[in-house]
Amino acid sequence: MSDPDINHQVVLARRPQGEPVLSDFWAAHSPRPTIRDGELLLRTIYVSIDPAMRGWLAETQGYVETVAVGAVMRSFGLGEVVASRHPDYQVGDLLVAVTGWQEWSAVDPAGVLHRVARSDVALSASLGVLGITGLTAYVGIVDIGRARAGETVLVSSAAGSVGSAAGQIARAQGARTIGMTGSEEKRRLCLDTFGFDACINYREVDDLTEALKELCPDGIDVYLDSVGGATLDAVLPVLAQNGRIAICGTISEPSGAASPGPRPNRQILVKRLTMQGFLATDYLARLPEISDLLTTMIQDGKLMHLEEITEGLHAAPQALEQLLAGKNQGKSIVRVGPETT
Amino acid sequence: MSDPDINHQVVLARRPQGEPVLSDFWAAHSPRPTIRDGELLLRTIYVSIDPAMRGWLAETQGYVETVAVGAVMRSFGLGEVVASRHPDYQVGDLLVAVTGWQEWSAVDPAGVLHRVARSDVALSASLGVLGITGLTAYVGIVDIGRARAGETVLVSSAAGSVGSAAGQIARAQGARTIGMTGSEEKRRLCLDTFGFDACINYREVDDLTEALKELCPDGIDVYLDSVGGATLDAVLPVLAQNGRIAICGTISEPSGAASPGPRPNRQILVKRLTMQGFLATDYLARLPEISDLLTTMIQDGKLMHLEEITEGLHAAPQALEQLLAGKNQGKSIVRVGPETT
Repeated sequence: MSDPDINHQVVLARRPQGEPVLSDFWAAHSPRPTIRDGELLLRTIYVSIDPAMRGWLAETQGYVETVAVGAVMRSFGLGEVVASRHPDYQVGDLLVAVTGWQEWSAVDPAGVLHRVARSDVALSASLGVLGITGLTAYVGIVDIGRARAGETVLVSSAAGSVGSAAGQIARAQGARTIGMTGSEEKRRLCLDTFGFDACINYREVDDLTEALKELCPDGIDVYLDSVGGATLDAVLPVLAQNGRIAICGTISEPSGAASPGPRPNRQILVKRLTMQGFLATDYLARLPEISDLLTTMIQDGKLMHLEEITEGLHAAPQALEQLLAGKNQGKSIVRVGPETT
Repeated sequence: MSDPDINHQVVLARRPQGEPVLSDFWAAHSPRPTIRDGELLLRTIYVSIDPAMRGWLAETQGYVETVAVGAVMRSFGLGEVVASRHPDYQVGDLLVAVTGWQEWSAVDPAGVLHRVARSDVALSASLGVLGITGLTAYVGIVDIGRARAGETVLVSSAAGSVGSAAGQIARAQGARTIGMTGSEEKRRLCLDTFGFDACINYREVDDLTEALKELCPDGIDVYLDSVGGATLDAVLPVLAQNGRIAICGTISEPSGAASPGPRPNRQILVKRLTMQGFLATDYLARLPEISDLLTTMIQDGKLMHLEEITEGLHAAPQALEQLLAGKNQGKSIVRVGPETT
């Protein structure tokens, strides 16, 4: 165990130029924080490494404030309450909160995303398939996408943590599921582990639109889109009438000014499409219910999920670099401390 | 009266190059059609001149089949049933149907849009504010836009037939209404006749985005968009969180391949926007109910509408040219025959 009075942290050393890299971060430490009335002291167990971090680090304002140079890197984390000055939280509670890349955090309840109940599913799942990741997949497919039995559902980054859950949730709704991914290894994973009905390695096809038309002769009813850009351009012509595009990410596009491309609005009109953006954090109130449902799916063997757990807070920047390079397999999580002390 | 055995028509002489012009059409005639079992013979009273005709005439496939060179120009029309071989329709019934630009048409009930009841509102309104035009405005503002009291609603082509109705319907919902239009005369019309809270002459502003931001400091909650293109690009940054864009037209864009512009999907994500295309003809089942509601609004003086009625079928191509040049004022209708015989 490290010294409990020292709070090891990873801070942003400089504004990333393009993709964030290792050298954009440095290790720092500060005294273990004290808490004020209404706050909780959390001991970080795991932190989550997410594609959204790219946006949080970009100069341009996205949904949340940009992480300042010199500040602790923002992240979701799973922590244990070790001290509480708020009546709703007790020592020993497990919470997913905005902990940042650090060992200890003083958290206001507004920064708490959800409580975690211990079950026979690993605790780390609360940062993935039983947390924001699963919530994103479920809301995208069921609430925004309104996928119905017999429909065709397309999922981008299909081997990723959101995509793989989305495919299996769509399948559970009775839909035919098509994945898109960027390597043969991930394509096999989609077919063999995540049960997609078909999967395209987009690096292997000459014309993505034509490849999708061949696979989806009646068109795509729902597209869960985490990438945007040229992929979205290529998918749009294959959408069926009254199709829904649920946008949960734009990872292929720069974070700054809108990227140039063909305007989608004429296709949206002619085919009566709905293109809707959503953030899972707007749906946190539904997480307990959805998490229960997904837990049952896991226990029934209907929802496979992969995790890639990296050891040690100091390795978080590297885990992020790997994630953004598409080199991870499954939900990327960094172990910061032991599950129990 | 013209010879009832001759069916005067206007046919497409050649495929328009760019905007349709007078010389793309010619006058023709044929014998008055006979009807088969299940069909109705309609005497055309009015035909409607619509922006959508631009798309119907374009080479590229839109929602409906392209009008063939040599064929009667497609249009909606109000007609009186003069012979019926269908049990649901009686001689004397007034119907809005796909009549085409001709004096007589043999119509299958599938081509009937709605029945018209005589009221104290002029019959021609059934092709405008009490027909597809009003239905488009209502569905756009209420169903797709979900405009609520206290919200800010922006309407393109605000002095036009759909736009002016949309503004007044939004106002009746308790929303603040902002119009965009292309001349000072139309701007005055929006403010003085159609009761918009504010109106922008987009030709007079240097930076439409900035002008909208000034008018809408809390952002735009609903945008009813009939123009697309650079106007939509300029409006997007002013949309409020959870804003809705109801797309009923793309008149500023070419009918063929998608026009290039900034991709909207990142803004759609970050602001959780919904961009949805709709066609009023998908909502015809609700027209009787909505038409009754709009009739009451007209009778209560809460829904002003302008019509520009051109005399004579031969003048239809010119009316279309005027409409597409933005030179008409109010719903453009051509009188083909008398209201009663």
